[in-house]
Amino acid sequence: MKTAFFGDIAPIRFEGPDSSNPLAYRWYQPDRVVLGKRMEDHLRFAVCYWHSFCLTGSDPFGQATFDRPWQGGDGLAGARLKADVAFDAFELLGVPFFTFHDRDVAPEGADFAESLRNFQVMADVLAGKIEESGVRLLWGTANLFSHPRFMAGAATNPDPQVFAYAAATVKNCLDVTRRLGGRNYVLWGGREGYETLLNTDLRRELDQLGRFLSLVVDYKHKIGFDGTILIEPKPKEPTKHQYDFDTATVYGFLKRYGLEQEVKVNIEANHAMLAGHTFEHEIALANALGIFGSLDVNRGDGLLGWDTDQFPNNVEDVALPLYHVLQGGGFVNGGLNFDAKIRRQSIDPVDLLYAHVGGIDICARALLVAAEMIESGRLAGHVADRYAGWETPEGQALLKGELSLADIAADVERRNTEPRAQSGRQEYLENMVARYL
Amino acid sequence: MKTAFFGDIAPIRFEGPDSSNPLAYRWYQPDRVVLGKRMEDHLRFAVCYWHSFCLTGSDPFGQATFDRPWQGGDGLAGARLKADVAFDAFELLGVPFFTFHDRDVAPEGADFAESLRNFQVMADVLAGKIEESGVRLLWGTANLFSHPRFMAGAATNPDPQVFAYAAATVKNCLDVTRRLGGRNYVLWGGREGYETLLNTDLRRELDQLGRFLSLVVDYKHKIGFDGTILIEPKPKEPTKHQYDFDTATVYGFLKRYGLEQEVKVNIEANHAMLAGHTFEHEIALANALGIFGSLDVNRGDGLLGWDTDQFPNNVEDVALPLYHVLQGGGFVNGGLNFDAKIRRQSIDPVDLLYAHVGGIDICARALLVAAEMIESGRLAGHVADRYAGWETPEGQALLKGELSLADIAADVERRNTEPRAQSGRQEYLENMVARYL
Amino acid sequence: MKTAFFGDIAPIRFEGPDSSNPLAYRWYQPDRVVLGKRMEDHLRFAVCYWHSFCLTGSDPFGQATFDRPWQGGDGLAGARLKADVAFDAFELLGVPFFTFHDRDVAPEGADFAESLRNFQVMADVLAGKIEESGVRLLWGTANLFSHPRFMAGAATNPDPQVFAYAAATVKNCLDVTRRLGGRNYVLWGGREGYETLLNTDLRRELDQLGRFLSLVVDYKHKIGFDGTILIEPKPKEPTKHQYDFDTATVYGFLKRYGLEQEVKVNIEANHAMLAGHTFEHEIALANALGIFGSLDVNRGDGLLGWDTDQFPNNVEDVALPLYHVLQGGGFVNGGLNFDAKIRRQSIDPVDLLYAHVGGIDICARALLVAAEMIESGRLAGHVADRYAGWETPEGQALLKGELSLADIAADVERRNTEPRAQSGRQEYLENMVARYL
Amino acid sequence: MKTAFFGDIAPIRFEGPDSSNPLAYRWYQPDRVVLGKRMEDHLRFAVCYWHSFCLTGSDPFGQATFDRPWQGGDGLAGARLKADVAFDAFELLGVPFFTFHDRDVAPEGADFAESLRNFQVMADVLAGKIEESGVRLLWGTANLFSHPRFMAGAATNPDPQVFAYAAATVKNCLDVTRRLGGRNYVLWGGREGYETLLNTDLRRELDQLGRFLSLVVDYKHKIGFDGTILIEPKPKEPTKHQYDFDTATVYGFLKRYGLEQEVKVNIEANHAMLAGHTFEHEIALANALGIFGSLDVNRGDGLLGWDTDQFPNNVEDVALPLYHVLQGGGFVNGGLNFDAKIRRQSIDPVDLLYAHVGGIDICARALLVAAEMIESGRLAGHVADRYAGWETPEGQALLKGELSLADIAADVERRNTEPRAQSGRQEYLENMVARYL
Ligand SMILES: [Co+2]
Ligand SMILES: [Co+2]
Ligand SMILES: [Co+2]
Ligand SMILES: [Co+2]
Ligand SMILES: [Co+2]
Ligand SMILES: [Co+2]
Ligand SMILES: [Co+2]
Ligand SMILES: [Co+2]
Repeated sequence: MKTAFFGDIAPIRFEGPDSSNPLAYRWYQPDRVVLGKRMEDHLRFAVCYWHSFCLTGSDPFGQATFDRPWQGGDGLAGARLKADVAFDAFELLGVPFFTFHDRDVAPEGADFAESLRNFQVMADVLAGKIEESGVRLLWGTANLFSHPRFMAGAATNPDPQVFAYAAATVKNCLDVTRRLGGRNYVLWGGREGYETLLNTDLRRELDQLGRFLSLVVDYKHKIGFDGTILIEPKPKEPTKHQYDFDTATVYGFLKRYGLEQEVKVNIEANHAMLAGHTFEHEIALANALGIFGSLDVNRGDGLLGWDTDQFPNNVEDVALPLYHVLQGGGFVNGGLNFDAKIRRQSIDPVDLLYAHVGGIDICARALLVAAEMIESGRLAGHVADRYAGWETPEGQALLKGELSLADIAADVERRNTEPRAQSGRQEYLENMVARYL
Repeated sequence: MKTAFFGDIAPIRFEGPDSSNPLAYRWYQPDRVVLGKRMEDHLRFAVCYWHSFCLTGSDPFGQATFDRPWQGGDGLAGARLKADVAFDAFELLGVPFFTFHDRDVAPEGADFAESLRNFQVMADVLAGKIEESGVRLLWGTANLFSHPRFMAGAATNPDPQVFAYAAATVKNCLDVTRRLGGRNYVLWGGREGYETLLNTDLRRELDQLGRFLSLVVDYKHKIGFDGTILIEPKPKEPTKHQYDFDTATVYGFLKRYGLEQEVKVNIEANHAMLAGHTFEHEIALANALGIFGSLDVNRGDGLLGWDTDQFPNNVEDVALPLYHVLQGGGFVNGGLNFDAKIRRQSIDPVDLLYAHVGGIDICARALLVAAEMIESGRLAGHVADRYAGWETPEGQALLKGELSLADIAADVERRNTEPRAQSGRQEYLENMVARYL
Repeated sequence: MKTAFFGDIAPIRFEGPDSSNPLAYRWYQPDRVVLGKRMEDHLRFAVCYWHSFCLTGSDPFGQATFDRPWQGGDGLAGARLKADVAFDAFELLGVPFFTFHDRDVAPEGADFAESLRNFQVMADVLAGKIEESGVRLLWGTANLFSHPRFMAGAATNPDPQVFAYAAATVKNCLDVTRRLGGRNYVLWGGREGYETLLNTDLRRELDQLGRFLSLVVDYKHKIGFDGTILIEPKPKEPTKHQYDFDTATVYGFLKRYGLEQEVKVNIEANHAMLAGHTFEHEIALANALGIFGSLDVNRGDGLLGWDTDQFPNNVEDVALPLYHVLQGGGFVNGGLNFDAKIRRQSIDPVDLLYAHVGGIDICARALLVAAEMIESGRLAGHVADRYAGWETPEGQALLKGELSLADIAADVERRNTEPRAQSGRQEYLENMVARYL
Repeated sequence: MKTAFFGDIAPIRFEGPDSSNPLAYRWYQPDRVVLGKRMEDHLRFAVCYWHSFCLTGSDPFGQATFDRPWQGGDGLAGARLKADVAFDAFELLGVPFFTFHDRDVAPEGADFAESLRNFQVMADVLAGKIEESGVRLLWGTANLFSHPRFMAGAATNPDPQVFAYAAATVKNCLDVTRRLGGRNYVLWGGREGYETLLNTDLRRELDQLGRFLSLVVDYKHKIGFDGTILIEPKPKEPTKHQYDFDTATVYGFLKRYGLEQEVKVNIEANHAMLAGHTFEHEIALANALGIFGSLDVNRGDGLLGWDTDQFPNNVEDVALPLYHVLQGGGFVNGGLNFDAKIRRQSIDPVDLLYAHVGGIDICARALLVAAEMIESGRLAGHVADRYAGWETPEGQALLKGELSLADIAADVERRNTEPRAQSGRQEYLENMVARYL
């Protein structure tokens, strides 16, 4: 360990399902082969800098509760200490990836130039630590939402100078992400939306956002970044309405600006919930639309109306999502990022570890469940049987458009029979899933 | 009056804002000219057959409460009586349009052929009444959700025979809609969704739905129907998830199947709310995306999680939506359909009239408010000023993509200045709107 | 089996966790002893007549989908067949209890007298079947919400004649419940609320409801009914607002009318969710307030805003609630009633069995988890430690009120020190719970 | 003006409904007599220190956006400047009251003693300004939620030392509130709740809270504070669950600890919404239960799940609540506190004034509407008519309990008639209300 932050805690190891050691893995074995691939390569866990090393425990009604020695004081020294602690955590947990915002790893400077210099200094530091530790960068992203300059949007700001500022910021962050070997670059439009339609030109803002994304995609190709550009949908919070509402909305946006082959989605469980969807819905839909990219695995609270970003803690919450990931072929560049924060009262450094150990283990266990569901093939078989009629020549003729509406109607009138109803078997299928858990 | 259903109530007349007669209009004057057009031609009110003449007052926990003499008994005789009462209501209210589902106006028969015959008989009846009364058809639609055959979807059913049945049904309903001079044809996919992903092939169902819609569009052109095909989005209820979730989702779907020039949206206030949007958001977005069609004007209850379909009763709820309609150029084929039902305890025939009188008057008053907002130009002017920077050569260069991301970044670094923040003036604008109300 | 409804399905038996037979128990063994008591005696499962034998698969947008031969036709003959099928189901499932509304088991007659005769005839029938089968009555209740006469409330109706009608109905239902050996009598106020405050005298309606409940309690004592009177809270649906909103509201109501020693709560999982609470919150609160009675164990959908009444299917959803039940001493008269309905597409008789088998097994497994949590004592121990300061003399002095506010303030000023913060350990505790699952 | 903060803006004056001056009142005339009382005395407006002079425009995803010269720097000097600006605002707006938390007006010190000294210094300052300006204190309250020491609760903290610290804080705040002539003292339990039941002893925490409140009530009497003690209910946020969930829950709590004659509620519109209630519901219920105290008048956003605390801006939102206030006899010690904050992008000092001017005017207009509804008596008359049956001897006999359940049943059986249904007239009544708006 580079720092004393976590005291004398030893690296977390696999001890098996019977262990009651709160700092051991019961399910996560990186090298265990599941469906022909190592667990680590399936799950591609990432710890997130923002939540774990930048937050302070404050909330809208309360001050900071965490004692983080790198906060306050000299910016770059703090950033270096923060990086040391972060990599200590990565090592203790044995995770293969991390993720960051530019502003997480390097402090805002007095002006654009200084902010950029700070970021470049820290990029060097991180490059060294990546080299040394073997921990890789799942994705980078630019924080275009915290600073007051972005209060009315970044790409969708009514002031083109803010658009330009944001564009320059992304350009540099994409450069650093590429340099650090990032597998993806994420855009979360936390301020790309509106507070009130009364002061908003919706169409204009959508066009600005389309232009911005096109610029990023062009630049990606220009510099030969071989990772994936990802949009992270979220329907609201901080703004009243965000343009990247959910996967379906992002798909329509990409189609509108001709970017559906270039950009994929980074789906967060809690954001799905805020948009009125299950996590697995968003994944299944992204698979169907060909834009599945990566996951922010966390947990919301269905009784609270904001992004609680809790660590996943229920195997069922993760097993069905992972089943859909596996059915779609698994992650390519994507992975499982813990976009999750410890609760405000979890003030001890060890709480950070408890949270990740629990989250990692739930995901590992969920992977085993999902793999068993895939291997048995019973669920998929049931679905295929249900639609079997569409594989007949008659079904295919309908689907391919070989008959006109009038043709079909003539046929129905001629036959004049009632289709036969079949049970949807929902409870049976739910019980089947419960058996795997 | 053809029937005694409404007793001796006289046609509703305009009596002016000071009237306290609950069966008079205080604001609605069909011939009053607003922004150069008659009120009636702006608002294009439609009474909806389904809610007003088919519902019985039952709810998931209670039986029918309304005494509707046309329910039960011989199907066609009941349907004729129902039509007589409906046209009595249209005349009493003085509305220019009505809307229907095929099944609202004609009873289900023993088989497809008999159902079709019933529908055709009633189409003749309706044609006569339209001729006689001058009340026109805003849109027709087919009920593809009530009968058990559609329990697992119509176009998205796992059984292609149900798809065919639904296609044949729509073919006939579109024929009748065209014959009756309907200005639009609506598709509401109340069962086009899923109850559980466990038995659902999402991608396949989307393709089925795309094919279905393409067949309808092709047929529309074949028969020379000059109205508009509309999709009515709703996110859920009756199913857990419906594919036509909201305007943004429908737009993406239309783009996917190449139908964005052919199909528009019929936006319902309560459905917008269930999807997490304001009514004006959905309208403004449809305008921005070029798919605005028509409105189901009603009211939901933000504290209840289902489609309460109440009559609009708050001028502010309608004024901002109408402002966006006017800004988009007003209705072409569309109009304001009262997709609203009286409460279960409103058991007297006169309650149907109270409800419509209130709804019509609120919309008329809201039109005056919206027109004043348009005429003063202050709100639109404020918005235009806010984005003025984008109209400069520098702004346009950014928007048009004349600069690359690297160009923009180089420029920002060179200038190294902070954009100047400006107040969003939300409270000021809200106060401005409140002044018009 | 008395009837052929379920075909040749054999009684469900325990086959152990490895069974993949969808009609076998994997966890539920009635005679297995857990924490010193038989599983059956812990769980006290009840099948609910209303959902399983009275519903038809209709929903607000769709007609009946289930083929139930006892629907329609002659009332009492249908009621007898229904009872035969119901007891066939109880026997197949091996459950010890059932629950009913008066109207579930006997048809509404032409007037009060005939309805009562029908109910008494069926009470005889049920008494015979109870005798024969050994299946007991967990609770009875009167349906005071389906008939139009109750559309504006039963006890809280603006018409005192409806109050009287409801009172007479409850009197007879309580008589029958007592006669059939019911362990509880439930009041669910599905229409005891309002649709709009505009026509409602809130205070008056609360007083009516208080009087009604007092009458029921007095009558219970008069006839020597030794079961428990239960109120089932639900915040809304069917009405906009129901007076028995949640456990806390019911407690205040009972205190207001001096009934807190007489009446307890029947808590439903889905109703808790609709009120913004977790199931375990409602149980823990009822324990704290001394009014815990019984449970309607089902599952809602956090993304839908109505009472979906699904069968429980996730062990975690049930384990924490049962942990609180066990901590409160377990059920006395109460039990686990499956207030749950199969989905509308689950049209086969066997679907009814799948649903119950899954629900029973989840609860049995959850009981084992909860028992292990109780036995290990680690969770309770952690909580006790957290509050240990309150067991010191200083803590007790504060709690007992031995010091005045001024005394306490003087002491704090004198010491002038900052309390020491301690981690809330939420993630650690969540991981601990996850280990038991 | 004491400060230059608001520039050269002149005091806001009444200019009448036709004014389009955004810094004039169109409806608010303090001296206009409505229902026999001055508008000012009806409405008793208060500006809230916390939202208007302490917030910075930060949100969970963004930094401060407001430039407030009194933030940062020397605590007491800043506090003095803040007070000067606050009283400048009160004077510009012409409001009769303000409200504060102890921590709003005086900075936290290094320890309890210094915090207390700071508060006492500022109490002197405020006393002078109250004297000078004639602006009075509607209520004071102690901030028991922002400092980390309260992260696990104040009265309900697992550590009795935090309870004592909170008790000492309230003692001093109540002393200052009394000294400054405060008409009420408010307790908002923002941390009196739990994040997870796993670490919570619900019953114990309720008892702690009951004790705490009893201590406060005793102390109030001891020092002769003649104002009202108020609890402000809120269901959640910041915590997952707060004990003072809503009015009904607070009532039950007060009954449990014998405090229902001593404590009333301060109802906030946005908190009502978060609890699933309308604002008018909470007021009507508090009236019915005899615990109505005061109002935090603001506005939530039904599509967002958190406390947006917006300024009221829709006359209908306020008119029905004020109608219920007037029906309950109007405010005694209470008033209308703007517990509302300007949006984060409203960065100019004048935005603070726009917001209050709009809020004040909406409430004034709503008062006129509510007064007209009271004066016409039509709504109340309709309600009285609806329940007229309860005023007959038969109705009263039922209500007073003169008949037993068996008596009532015998009577119903004897008469054997069906009660006559009557329309609830919801749409009619909604139209009637719309006419007053
Ligand atoms: Co995320
Ligand atoms: Co999130
Ligand atoms: Co509609
Ligand atoms: Co609707
Ligand atoms: Co229930
Ligand atoms: Co329920
Ligand atoms: Co408040
Ligand atoms: Co608030």
